This record gives sequence, C-alpha cells and structure tokens, in this order.
Amino acid sequence: MIKLYHAPRTRSVRILWLLEELGLPYAVERVEFRPPEKHFFAQATPLGKLPTLEDGDVVMCESGAIVEYILERYGEGRLAPPPGSRERAAFLQWLHFAESTAFPPLGIVVWLTRYRSGSEPDAELLEDARSRARTGLDVLERALDGHDYLVGADFTAADIMMGFTLVAARVLGVLDERYPHLDAYLERLQSRPAFQKAIAVA
Amino acid sequence: MIKLYHAPRTRSVRILWLLEELGLPYAVERVEFRPPEKHFFAQATPLGKLPTLEDGDVVMCESGAIVEYILERYGEGRLAPPPGSRERAAFLQWLHFAESTAFPPLGIVVWLTRYRSGSEPDAELLEDARSRARTGLDVLERALDGHDYLVGADFTAADIMMGFTLVAARVLGVLDERYPHLDAYLERLQSRPAFQKAIAVA
Repeated sequence: MIKLYHAPRTRSVRILWLLEELGLPYAVERVEFRPPEKHFFAQATPLGKLPTLEDGDVVMCESGAIVEYILERYGEGRLAPPPGSRERAAFLQWLHFAESTAFPPLGIVVWLTRYRSGSEPDAELLEDARSRARTGLDVLERALDGHDYLVGADFTAADIMMGFTLVAARVLGVLDERYPHLDAYLERLQSRPAFQKAIAVA
Repeated sequence: MIKLYHAPRTRSVRILWLLEELGLPYAVERVEFRPPEKHFFAQATPLGKLPTLEDGDVVMCESGAIVEYILERYGEGRLAPPPGSRERAAFLQWLHFAESTAFPPLGIVVWLTRYRSGSEPDAELLEDARSRARTGLDVLERALDGHDYLVGADFTAADIMMGFTLVAARVLGVLDERYPHLDAYLERLQSRPAFQKAIAVA
C-alpha cells in the first residue's frame, strides 16, 4: 500500500488531496515538521523531505513528481488530460508553474520571516519578494478570468498543485482582495470533500 | 514546426539541448533577456517568460513542462523511462527536483546579487542562500557517487533539467571543488554534442 510521510500545512497536503480525489487506499506516517533553519533536508523521512512517498520498492520526493507518478500508475485517466490530447500542454505547464514559478517568491517570504531566527527581515527586501510573488498571481488571475479551473472545464491535478500554492499565498498575506478570480477559485477548490479530508489529517 | 523563444544563458538552453538530443527540427526566435528587476514576466515572448514554446496551436512556458511535452509528443520513448517502468519515479523526481528544489536558492542568489539594482546584498543573507543551495548539491553529490547519470545507466532528460541548474550553480560560485562527483557529471553532460550545439545558439 502507498505510504505517505506527512505533516500538516506542508506540500504533503497535495498528495493526500490527490489520493482522496482518486479514492486510493494509503497509510500516513505522521512526522513533525522541522523548520529548515540550517538545512533543506531536515525532515524525518527517508529522503529528508516532505512529502516522501513509499510504494513497494519506490521511494520518492518532490510533490509534483509524486503527483505525476500516482496519476500514471493509479489514475486510470482521471484528473489529467492524456498525453497527446489538446489540453495536455496546459496541464503540464500549470502543474510545473505551481511550484517552479509561483512558489519560489513565496518561499523567499517564508525564509525571510520564519526560518531566519534572530534577525528582523529587511522590509524593502521582503516587499520585493511579495511583489514578485504577486506577478505570478497576476498571471493566474488573468488565466482564471471566466474559467472555473486551470485546464479546460474540469478539475485536474494541476489545480491540486496550484491550490496548495494559493493557500500558502493567502496565509502569507500575498493573495488578498486584489484577486477576485483567485479568491473564487480557491474557494471552489477548498470546498471539495477531498481537500477537506486532506487538511483534516492531523 | 516547433518554434522556441530563446535567449542564451536562460532556461531555454534546456529546450534547445533536448531538441538537439532528439534531432528534431525547430526554429529559434531570438529575444533579448531582460533582467526582471520589477517583474517576473518581462520577456518578449507570448507568455512573458523564457523559454516559451510554440507548436501549432500550443503555446506554453515552464521548461520542465516543455521537456515533458516534447518527450511525450516527439520522444518516441527516447530519453525517459516509460510510465510504469521501474525507473520512472526517479526520472520524475529528478526532473522536478532540478527546478523545484535545487534552483530556488540559486534564484535567490541571482536576485540578491543581480536584479536588485542600487542595493548591496546583505552578506549574511547571501551566504545563507548559498548554504541552502549547497544542501541541494549535497544530495546530488551523494546520488551521483558511482553513477554516470541520475536515472539508471543512461542519460535522460532529467540530466538536461539538472545540467542547466548545475551550470548556474557553477557560474554563481556555489558548485565548486567540494563536489567532485558533480564536477565529473557536469563535464560528462557538457561534452555531449547536443549540449555544445545548444550553447552555441547565440
């Protein structure tokens, strides 16, 4: 059975959410999140990262990679347009965008405000990071104008990847009332039973 | 025909490299890289980002997504273990790791030293970013101990993703003599004719 190393409010929420959407059986190995003050790979998982997935001989990290792996192996065509289809490029783009473009400036905000104990963050630097994060949100706000989901008419795993990023953006005060489409989108995502189950795993 | 918006020393090198490895025909639309002092989406491409790919009706960004798209559509099984195979999880993990884990701290170094005109970076902050970047390199150094490539015995597109990240790490002074396995690995990658062709596109 799939075993997921999980801590609340980390990227492992994405994997729980996906597993719940697909109705797959899994076991959770709960770990305490350790703020990476000195080290990125400080978590009590086989690879030092959250999330880490075990599935038979497979041990892997990287939430985007785990999402792709689960979809390929157990998705039976659900939550992703198939390779070669018209919407495949958009699906891949947003799946990567969530972590590779939208998240890094949010990660800087977290780093400056939470992981550098003992030093007050430079206010101008912090505002620069927030501003950069907003340029990513601006692109998403336009992409979701008139659309319920990122890819075509249906919810896909790209929305799972982006949903976690947007939750983080809201918690960090970057996603605010300037983004009505993102606000409605995030509400749409958070109202899904699978999301609710995922964040209820304590 | 595939059209790639490209500027030297940007992530579009990854796509050129992949196209050369696969021997695919393509056209290059050369754009001038604009340092994103105020905005992440400042490039003169249809999506404001580099790389951007056009392929018929498809217009997409995100280098990792473009790599996956090209492999699925034109790869004919080359440069990636197939879905369901034993090495697929590692392939997906390293493909994502290159941009989602290894690059962000390098991106901070670039941001602090090159894109914030007029202000000298805080030395301790900069060293913290470099130190975080090194934790990613440490993981890779161990992964490549005794291995020529990241996934199994053969070169894959995950090496293309990581190769660009490591070139950046070297340019930024983060990848140095402390990493003999990464050094040999990068030399192995850079000696490939397709890499040489990719970086020769001016």
